[in-house]
Amino acid sequence: MQIATPYLMFLGDVPDALAAKTAYGIKDWRPDWCIGQMRLPGCNADLGIPDMTLEEGLAKGCRTLVVGVVNAGGVLPDHWIAEIVAALEAGYDVASGLHVRLGAVPAIAEAAERRGRQLHDVRHTTETFPTGKGTRRPGRRLLTVGTDCSVGKKYTVLALEKGMRERGLDADFRATGQTGVFISGRGVAIDAVVADFISGAVETVSPAAAPDHWDLIEGQGSLYHPSFAGVSLGLLHGAQADAFVVCHEPTRTTMRGVQHPLPTIRQVIDLTVQLGRLTNPDIRPVGIAVNTQALGEDEARRLLEGLAAEYGLPATDPVRFGVASLVDRIVADFPAT
Amino acid sequence: MQIATPYLMFLGDVPDALAAKTAYGIKDWRPDWCIGQMRLPGCNADLGIPDMTLEEGLAKGCRTLVVGVVNAGGVLPDHWIAEIVAALEAGYDVASGLHVRLGAVPAIAEAAERRGRQLHDVRHTTETFPTGKGTRRPGRRLLTVGTDCSVGKKYTVLALEKGMRERGLDADFRATGQTGVFISGRGVAIDAVVADFISGAVETVSPAAAPDHWDLIEGQGSLYHPSFAGVSLGLLHGAQADAFVVCHEPTRTTMRGVQHPLPTIRQVIDLTVQLGRLTNPDIRPVGIAVNTQALGEDEARRLLEGLAAEYGLPATDPVRFGVASLVDRIVADFPAT
Repeated sequence: MQIATPYLMFLGDVPDALAAKTAYGIKDWRPDWCIGQMRLPGCNADLGIPDMTLEEGLAKGCRTLVVGVVNAGGVLPDHWIAEIVAALEAGYDVASGLHVRLGAVPAIAEAAERRGRQLHDVRHTTETFPTGKGTRRPGRRLLTVGTDCSVGKKYTVLALEKGMRERGLDADFRATGQTGVFISGRGVAIDAVVADFISGAVETVSPAAAPDHWDLIEGQGSLYHPSFAGVSLGLLHGAQADAFVVCHEPTRTTMRGVQHPLPTIRQVIDLTVQLGRLTNPDIRPVGIAVNTQALGEDEARRLLEGLAAEYGLPATDPVRFGVASLVDRIVADFPAT
Repeated sequence: MQIATPYLMFLGDVPDALAAKTAYGIKDWRPDWCIGQMRLPGCNADLGIPDMTLEEGLAKGCRTLVVGVVNAGGVLPDHWIAEIVAALEAGYDVASGLHVRLGAVPAIAEAAERRGRQLHDVRHTTETFPTGKGTRRPGRRLLTVGTDCSVGKKYTVLALEKGMRERGLDADFRATGQTGVFISGRGVAIDAVVADFISGAVETVSPAAAPDHWDLIEGQGSLYHPSFAGVSLGLLHGAQADAFVVCHEPTRTTMRGVQHPLPTIRQVIDLTVQLGRLTNPDIRPVGIAVNTQALGEDEARRLLEGLAAEYGLPATDPVRFGVASLVDRIVADFPAT
């Protein structure tokens, strides 16, 4: 999937910012690609970028209308359909993170075909992948793993991409989730791939590269999550990670959506190394990334210092304290060839 | 997916028995459901059951035409389409293990809709599943796991179903692969489920049951297979297995389709227990099933005796020597409540 940039961001008439979470993520990480926003009457989200009509967006160079919002009830409302059809008529591609496939709406499918425009359903994939082979490929790879879902895996690799590039390293974010696909303009929502092809899809998303090139692969789920551990394992095997960062949220008491307790960071490190060795015998941890949002600054610093001492790894909150310590460790552990 | 029985087996004009492997599997395990076979000129497969026309099959009570064959090139030949349409016209449902979806062929889709018949694409699933919850549910569950793919996991659970029922136990085969779905008339090809829903699909396939009821769940892949370990792990977590049998093929030197060496049976037992504990802390091995086809009888017996002594578990070849020793162990380890 390759989405043409830049984007006009469609927010519809969502009731709050949370319903436009994906759009905010895209704007935060790719501000240059987010030229304008298009909002309908009643919209309560605002990306803080210029409001534009379809015509104004085209004049500014926009190529894709991005539907980065959640629609209540899973059904595409008629007035959204009308706007999407109008965008196709005007010459936009349309990329959507909705559960509903754009192509399943006859008016949209018909307009796209007639006008020769692309429809991208980021939550779905029609691409076919080979099964994973587990054969070592050149290039370096870092994967974020977690004690749970939604603990900052995407944020951490995006912050690392920025931090490593600032140090002159050759590093690319590799998306495996829907927001990540919008942010990189390519990639695969790995949770939408048919089960047999998880590791193969990751091998495709992060192909052979130059020896010093880093692919920074967005992790998903947790090896300890009873709903999603299979996805996490296929991702780990396909990534053939040389390095991994453990992401953690310290205030959570049960894993997201289930009643299971959180594993310790130690358990996650040990199991990731144990299982990751199947496709990369040299896999090693290079840091810990903690979401300390719920903690005061002193408390956050004490927690991170304690973790760094306990695990012998840099520990940071990428949002609050940056990723310099992680980049230092990566540079030290993986000298240029 | 619930397929109406009994079946008329469609073999088309396949060049050899291998191309009809699924059909042979169904006939072996559900001879009572396989009323007749329908072969086209040039067919080189023969299930050893009466050849029948569509009309003769209907007269014998057949309700579903089963396309249990592989078509070369992945494209459905026109003369097969004509037969499938004729079956729908005659009043059959059609169930297929082809890669091509029946409903993607306009003539077939149209005939099914017009006649109100069901199309079952066993390799695909349109069913939506919840994500797995990992919550313990009543009933007992046995899962077959493997040192590799294609080492007898389906055969072993089917043999156990037969053997346990003969001992008066309440046991049901639970299919997770396409041949298994035909054999049980229900289930899900787990490798075709979208990645996020692997464990949830298994929870659906093997729901809460009476305390002494056994679900015998067909395993897939191997936790040590770099292509499919994610599927195997999601299956293990969803199954919440109380007991597992390790399946093994002793002459293989690398894992199927890749260059990785086979794990030992010990490694498979240890990792299955370690990872399976996430959703069932009491998981335990109850036996080893070895495909000894490539060995002479004496050699096979020596191998099995050696394994039994080494692991303290019954070891058998279910095809050659039956599953009585496995059933003995299950009865001993899990007394009636």
